[in-house]
Amino acid sequence: MARWFESGTLSVMTLVPAATTAFAASVLRSRLAAAAVEAERRGLDALLITPSPDFAYLLGYRPPALERLTCLVVPASGVPRLVLPRLEAPLAAHQLGELADEVEVIAWDEVDDPFQLVHALIETDAARVGVQDQMWARFVLRLRAVLDPVELVAAGPAMAAMRRVKGPDEIERLRAAGAAADQAMLEITRERLSGRTEAEVSRRVLELLLEAGHDTAEFAIVASGPNAASPHHEAGGRVIEAGDAIVLDIGGTLAGYWSDTTRTAFVGEPPADFVALHEVLREAQEAACAAVGPGVAAAEVDRAARSIIEEAGYGERFIHRTGHGVGLELHEEPYVVAGNAEPLEPGHAFSVEPGIYLPGRWGARIEDIVVCTPDGGERLNGTDRRLHIVE
Amino acid sequence: MARWFESGTLSVMTLVPAATTAFAASVLRSRLAAAAVEAERRGLDALLITPSPDFAYLLGYRPPALERLTCLVVPASGVPRLVLPRLEAPLAAHQLGELADEVEVIAWDEVDDPFQLVHALIETDAARVGVQDQMWARFVLRLRAVLDPVELVAAGPAMAAMRRVKGPDEIERLRAAGAAADQAMLEITRERLSGRTEAEVSRRVLELLLEAGHDTAEFAIVASGPNAASPHHEAGGRVIEAGDAIVLDIGGTLAGYWSDTTRTAFVGEPPADFVALHEVLREAQEAACAAVGPGVAAAEVDRAARSIIEEAGYGERFIHRTGHGVGLELHEEPYVVAGNAEPLEPGHAFSVEPGIYLPGRWGARIEDIVVCTPDGGERLNGTDRRLHIVE
Repeated sequence: MARWFESGTLSVMTLVPAATTAFAASVLRSRLAAAAVEAERRGLDALLITPSPDFAYLLGYRPPALERLTCLVVPASGVPRLVLPRLEAPLAAHQLGELADEVEVIAWDEVDDPFQLVHALIETDAARVGVQDQMWARFVLRLRAVLDPVELVAAGPAMAAMRRVKGPDEIERLRAAGAAADQAMLEITRERLSGRTEAEVSRRVLELLLEAGHDTAEFAIVASGPNAASPHHEAGGRVIEAGDAIVLDIGGTLAGYWSDTTRTAFVGEPPADFVALHEVLREAQEAACAAVGPGVAAAEVDRAARSIIEEAGYGERFIHRTGHGVGLELHEEPYVVAGNAEPLEPGHAFSVEPGIYLPGRWGARIEDIVVCTPDGGERLNGTDRRLHIVE
Repeated sequence: MARWFESGTLSVMTLVPAATTAFAASVLRSRLAAAAVEAERRGLDALLITPSPDFAYLLGYRPPALERLTCLVVPASGVPRLVLPRLEAPLAAHQLGELADEVEVIAWDEVDDPFQLVHALIETDAARVGVQDQMWARFVLRLRAVLDPVELVAAGPAMAAMRRVKGPDEIERLRAAGAAADQAMLEITRERLSGRTEAEVSRRVLELLLEAGHDTAEFAIVASGPNAASPHHEAGGRVIEAGDAIVLDIGGTLAGYWSDTTRTAFVGEPPADFVALHEVLREAQEAACAAVGPGVAAAEVDRAARSIIEEAGYGERFIHRTGHGVGLELHEEPYVVAGNAEPLEPGHAFSVEPGIYLPGRWGARIEDIVVCTPDGGERLNGTDRRLHIVE
């Protein structure tokens, strides 16, 4: 989940003093070196990284993505250089800290052409350059024109190769975020939910996410009754009532890393068919988690959940992949989806979140973040996965 | 200003129930029609609009920008179509409301190739297609490959041509956001600031922005003492003390539209040279606001402020442009910058925010949002522009 445009319901970002310790300079230094190696390995003369999670991964801070070009140039060999608007130079110097000695900052003035500055940093015999996955199209198109005939390709694979394997400090952050989300989930499922609107409960979850230690509370899907059949439902004005299934999908960031967990609740005594549906789902989610281990294809984890749901006759009602990687982004590699033959490795972190959705009636989803370990998988969420009966 | 990565200081997003009324279907309908006309006028066979402010402008809601392609295809002639992942179809149907009859929704499944779906929607004899300015590079590169030999160009100019002239409902939202920001500014400048850290004051401003009616509190630059010389300073652990200049640059969104206002305060009795500096700045800001009117080049507004600052000997210390357009984005067209010969028109809305920065010592900035009217300019911020003396 991520941010929705406000439209009558709930806007979900939240404030906090980020108790974050930035990554150690030594960590960032080795990431920058690894990025150069990845570029070299893929035949890229340089990586061009605009403000984004990749930028934060390499430099430890994340400036705003704005119309003024800020671009880290990581050559396959040579010194990384950071091109930025002059008014952001003081902040960059502050944020780079120790790294400032190793990353050359090139500030441009309002009347300069920053694309020409980037051009001047690319070797004259360069053939291919990687551009950050979320770089704005306006920058991509300008760079393509200025760098011609250099070919622009996606920097995503090079960055993902590094980012999808989490280091110990990253897993620690994911673990802390997971624990905080669990705390919020525990508390919301103990509250009386009937008689409140989805939006009210969603806002309450955001507060609980912050109280539990998140730096930002980013989303709180509260999908009740027939709305539970919409996987990305936006919490709205519907009043929760007895007989509702409620999908609670919540998360935020802590020290830059995301939490993301889902549980399903039912208001009052659940009917036998919903209990049965949820039990199928729970088995499917367990089986998928149990399938995690080094060398196992991501698609196999998806298959483990999907086959159980299919056998129970709900195959058509499981309308999304089983999961997505998580880290500095809510959705990143590896994706747990049919067709992804990529073998899991220790340090991969991803959601396992099968769901069953019956349009017009109800839906259910169960989600944990799982880290692949040398021995199998470790879940970073631990609240009860059974159907939560609420008032 | 916009969002910074958390790194030891403050993360600035905030929660709220968005009391937003979405745009009327009739407004959206005419915007979609105007987009087709703009495409035609620029020789574009279609506009491809991924989730972004442009998307919100045309469809009235803003889905998350994620790795699954969501793309509105607006052909120069024909029916607009919305390609999206199936799991977001229910939300889209809900959000589109009345528009759902006119925008054909094409949902793709996890194993489909959405780029081929977009390809199938482009006329076979198409030559040029506009891509949304902030479309992710990964999508741009895929579309380029799939649509080849169709040329991809920036959709920005077409979209900006519409968006930079605000309609009455948009100006009303900007006005409400401006009034809310003024309220927060008024309150923070009445509080005792010395003895508190920048980060504490920043968090307090975010609360005040919300209390004053914003849907989201997005930023609160609190730059004190020597930090005031960094235009985009991130509020940090520095404790504010007597003798500090403090730049307060604050804003958020209300009904989707941004506020952005800056005032400068001084803790205790200000020295004569700072008073003189601030007075120069105030005159410059007044002159720039007074220069606003239909037919006046945006660059002239910049010149009006800059010439006064230059005459006073601070020309080298005014290190950024005078302003930026504002609306659904914090920074958008028109830009009030040297070289922009574009004539202002009634309905243009932008910041006027000259600043003077003396590295290592102090800085000051004054900022209002101004709307160009048939007769001149109307400021949407009205708090006292003189130096605020605080405790």
